[in-house]
Amino acid sequence: MKRRAFLTSAGAGLAAAGTAGTVAATVAAPAIAQSSQPEIKWRMASSYPKSLDTIYGAAEFIAKRVSDATDGRFQIRTFAAGEIVPALQVLDAVQNGTVECGQSAAYFYVGKDPTFCFDTAMPFGLNTRQHIAWMMHGGGLELMREVFKDYNIHHIPAGNTGAQMGGWFRKEIKSLEDLKGLKMRIGGLVGQILTPFGLVPQQLGGGDIYPALERGTIDAAEFVGPYDDEKLGFHKVAKYYYYPGWWEGSAQIPLMFNMQAWESLPKSYQTILEQACWEANSWMIAKYDTLNAAALKRLVGGGAVLRPFPRDMMQACEKAAFEFYDKLAAGNPRFKKVYDGWKPFLEQERLWFRVAENGFDSFVYSQATQQK
Amino acid sequence: MKRRAFLTSAGAGLAAAGTAGTVAATVAAPAIAQSSQPEIKWRMASSYPKSLDTIYGAAEFIAKRVSDATDGRFQIRTFAAGEIVPALQVLDAVQNGTVECGQSAAYFYVGKDPTFCFDTAMPFGLNTRQHIAWMMHGGGLELMREVFKDYNIHHIPAGNTGAQMGGWFRKEIKSLEDLKGLKMRIGGLVGQILTPFGLVPQQLGGGDIYPALERGTIDAAEFVGPYDDEKLGFHKVAKYYYYPGWWEGSAQIPLMFNMQAWESLPKSYQTILEQACWEANSWMIAKYDTLNAAALKRLVGGGAVLRPFPRDMMQACEKAAFEFYDKLAAGNPRFKKVYDGWKPFLEQERLWFRVAENGFDSFVYSQATQQK
Repeated sequence: MKRRAFLTSAGAGLAAAGTAGTVAATVAAPAIAQSSQPEIKWRMASSYPKSLDTIYGAAEFIAKRVSDATDGRFQIRTFAAGEIVPALQVLDAVQNGTVECGQSAAYFYVGKDPTFCFDTAMPFGLNTRQHIAWMMHGGGLELMREVFKDYNIHHIPAGNTGAQMGGWFRKEIKSLEDLKGLKMRIGGLVGQILTPFGLVPQQLGGGDIYPALERGTIDAAEFVGPYDDEKLGFHKVAKYYYYPGWWEGSAQIPLMFNMQAWESLPKSYQTILEQACWEANSWMIAKYDTLNAAALKRLVGGGAVLRPFPRDMMQACEKAAFEFYDKLAAGNPRFKKVYDGWKPFLEQERLWFRVAENGFDSFVYSQATQQK
Repeated sequence: MKRRAFLTSAGAGLAAAGTAGTVAATVAAPAIAQSSQPEIKWRMASSYPKSLDTIYGAAEFIAKRVSDATDGRFQIRTFAAGEIVPALQVLDAVQNGTVECGQSAAYFYVGKDPTFCFDTAMPFGLNTRQHIAWMMHGGGLELMREVFKDYNIHHIPAGNTGAQMGGWFRKEIKSLEDLKGLKMRIGGLVGQILTPFGLVPQQLGGGDIYPALERGTIDAAEFVGPYDDEKLGFHKVAKYYYYPGWWEGSAQIPLMFNMQAWESLPKSYQTILEQACWEANSWMIAKYDTLNAAALKRLVGGGAVLRPFPRDMMQACEKAAFEFYDKLAAGNPRFKKVYDGWKPFLEQERLWFRVAENGFDSFVYSQATQQK
């Protein structure tokens, strides 16, 4: 008879709070035989709500694919933000073994270390394809895994939103000057880049943005892109829809694994998880690329006014961004190590992409605009 | 004891020629139990040589990943072009069961049906991300699978070159007029689009291009992009390197499966193959995106002169391309069915991508150019 290891997590009933140090009790024991197909039940905590069928949908997609690839022997149950731990405590929950894995964006943990931003999005950084290239063939995954390792975490890219929109503004932004005193819901490193220009960054959860924008408590808000934004109804209370979201030309959402849980898996299950994550990476991008196109059409049809950010503003912000990175690198050796790998890659990619890819895209888009 | 089905292909020793009708003898028998992990040995015939470590490398990558995910129980042996069948007979070999699967580009079989081009690349068509979106969420995969089904084939996207270059020219092309009498190595539908403008398309295998270009037997040649082109040394005999390769803004390379072989697999193995193919799709794109960037830098450093195609030429070719598609659709119901799904998707994607994605890309590329 085939020997099976029932590695069901013992952590399911534990409360979310105060779980530091419970790793031994809650994560899976080492796999007994590499060649076996043990029965495993894991929990995945997401930082996202079920309403985001793009992002949370990818978590469910991965769980289904892993189950299908193992004849149901490896089961992962997904939990939305707040069901096990709050949205921004997913990394901690994975680190300490409250859950075996989590779906979250690394830049939520910028307070622990700004180096995490390289994993998700750097203002004026890599675009989505360049980001994947950096991860798969440019040394980025290895650099980021060193950072995650210090948090007892292994991670695999498992989704990306693509380039985001710049957000919804109640008034037009005609130049850099118009940022002065502007109260905007915007998070992460970009808030620190924009503050010297007079912008007042506001931290608000997804559900709090609409009422604040409606009442005028804030003047502007960025969220994701047309498909997700449409659901929250921002177009009803702020007319101008700006692009591009230069702080997120690519926003990668990985799966994070408790290191002991990851290492306990047989090689075949690790491979299956890697494949499911990479497949989900394409699946999420493709879903956004499909649904955003249809949503943008509806939003513009419903009165949203598309506006590009003023060039002087973008130039000043790009300059400020790289000065900010240089400063961070000077004071943070971990940031410096990743930055030193990332920046030459970025520069080389841009010189290539502006040729064939951008040559093709810019031509066909200009033609499409003329025809409409 | 776990029951195992040894589904080793009996076809390994068969000669490549004259294998039509050998399906029953060479493909795997139906899987005995869905929950089992049968031992399977398959052969994959590629249309590409081993020297293309990007494309052929993806075939090897898939074989390794499938083996790793099944603890070595599902083995796929890869064969380069010519080892089992010639490059352009891979579809036939898969159809008739000479091999269980193959790596090839659908547009090689344009002689059977031009509808195959939608799977690979349409001149002025989808870019790479849009192509993946069409496949995964836009109905494209379902439409193309209907076409392949008539050839007894199931297929899964498993690689893409990204936007290609326009190729190497001995003389500058300053306007549409300069295409008159130009002898160019170029294949597929685009040859038919360019012929009315006076271009004389030439069909040459990869190894025959360099001597023809050197001797002046041809005036120009397109192949893939910087990394692959550099190996063939075109820059030594033709100075001008044109972009973009508007006939291949995306070039998808799927794996093709003999339908009976595919259906004989347990669901878990089908899932693992799907995951490996989608992972390889990203892997190949990322590899090209990384290596092309470095190769372009070397080529330009070595004297290659980058030139964009003249706008009047591209506009005339785009108009001619869509007129050609309309004509094909009028006479080919299968082409029409796919075209009717593809074209509205293309139009909607362009209106969205020109906003956030192209807004981001065009800005950062223009800045990068200024800084150099």
